[in-house]
Amino acid sequence: MADTKRVRLTVAYDGTNYHGWQIQDNGITIESELNRCLSDLLHEDIQVIGASRTDSGVHALGNIAVFDTTARMPAEKVSYALNQRLPEDIRIQRSEEVASDWHPRYVTSRKTYEYRIYRGEFPMPVKRLYALFSYRTFDVAKMQQAAKYLVGEHDFKSFCQVGAQVDSTVRTLYSVEVEEQGSDLVIRVCGNGFLYNMVRIIAGTLMEVGQGKRAPEEMPSILDARNRSAAGPTAPAHGLMLMKYEFPEEL
Amino acid sequence: MADTKRVRLTVAYDGTNYHGWQIQDNGITIESELNRCLSDLLHEDIQVIGASRTDSGVHALGNIAVFDTTARMPAEKVSYALNQRLPEDIRIQRSEEVASDWHPRYVTSRKTYEYRIYRGEFPMPVKRLYALFSYRTFDVAKMQQAAKYLVGEHDFKSFCQVGAQVDSTVRTLYSVEVEEQGSDLVIRVCGNGFLYNMVRIIAGTLMEVGQGKRAPEEMPSILDARNRSAAGPTAPAHGLMLMKYEFPEEL
Repeated sequence: MADTKRVRLTVAYDGTNYHGWQIQDNGITIESELNRCLSDLLHEDIQVIGASRTDSGVHALGNIAVFDTTARMPAEKVSYALNQRLPEDIRIQRSEEVASDWHPRYVTSRKTYEYRIYRGEFPMPVKRLYALFSYRTFDVAKMQQAAKYLVGEHDFKSFCQVGAQVDSTVRTLYSVEVEEQGSDLVIRVCGNGFLYNMVRIIAGTLMEVGQGKRAPEEMPSILDARNRSAAGPTAPAHGLMLMKYEFPEEL
Repeated sequence: MADTKRVRLTVAYDGTNYHGWQIQDNGITIESELNRCLSDLLHEDIQVIGASRTDSGVHALGNIAVFDTTARMPAEKVSYALNQRLPEDIRIQRSEEVASDWHPRYVTSRKTYEYRIYRGEFPMPVKRLYALFSYRTFDVAKMQQAAKYLVGEHDFKSFCQVGAQVDSTVRTLYSVEVEEQGSDLVIRVCGNGFLYNMVRIIAGTLMEVGQGKRAPEEMPSILDARNRSAAGPTAPAHGLMLMKYEFPEEL
């Protein structure tokens, strides 16, 4: 019996043409494409374990997945070989061997997401897949003020889709930034974990603050409510990008 | 007989799914979509005249087109109504009435193009349609040095695709900038006119300078040669974006 090793992949993708990360019966997903191409490449049945099960339309510069294999191919070479087989909207950015018990969802990590809004009178075609279009004006200073209330350890139940099954809704956000980049407005959130739809609900709520529908000072009471209906709407998926994972224990 | 007016459109598009601007027999183009949707909207046979006939895969934030119509719809309203009918990868940014003899190719204009290169070890999926991927390193200072030789009035015959029919190959470039934007390298060119494939050949030549295949000091002799074979390769279409048209006489 050959030795088994665990390989970690840093996976970038354009989520436009996929039914999200997680395998499902009706539709191609990032996970199903990785399994198909890895099994083909390594001549064994490979099933990856992903870190973030992003929704349909959500993009990633660096999601994380691991898989076990007995194949002799060095872990560092998997990226090159796998990219030859994957569709062009999925590209491995890095592959490396990790400990056999390293699990992407049970290890301490820092995740960074960006939610992008393109502001203009009319939609801009080259932005349409990667930013939410809005013809409204936003009070950025008020959004920044509201964002500060979210930093730290909080119960984010108000920012979690109803029905999501989770043991605890307490998470820690290290930073929530609202930044203008020309016509784009970028909401950048970094934390130790995110509930289902959490970044999109934060984005939807901060956008309401920016439009004057809510005051920044309402944020503590939204958190205290521990009720999804207290927060703003879930912003559309295509404006969301998983930027990176960091693993502080590896530093 | 109703009055005829000339309407100018500022047209943005994602060129990925089109066979370029110009109408052709086999394939949908930006021009054919504009004609179809305008004729449908205004109930007359509309044929637009475009400023830049961009190639397949080239994008635009602001190409220019005009058309004549007897319809009563105010010129300023055309943008809103037309955007309801156009596919989502074409969007009118502005519509306005111009003089009946205003012609987008016979008026003095300044055009700005950007050629974008994404530098990384592997391609980044969300960039793949809007930037050329390169795993090479570029000496940006040398590219900037080479770019300076192109500024001013020159015979750009060496930077024009062979066989292009044109009266004169003399053009004036007001600026040629090479700028790093994180992982992206952007070549920004502003001029009074461009020959067929001129920006893509400039980009291909500057990239060769950046890779050490040519010295910046070779640029004058490339211009003097007045021969396409003296310059570098034509960089791929998808990295090119027509940024904007300016009409100095209107200021």
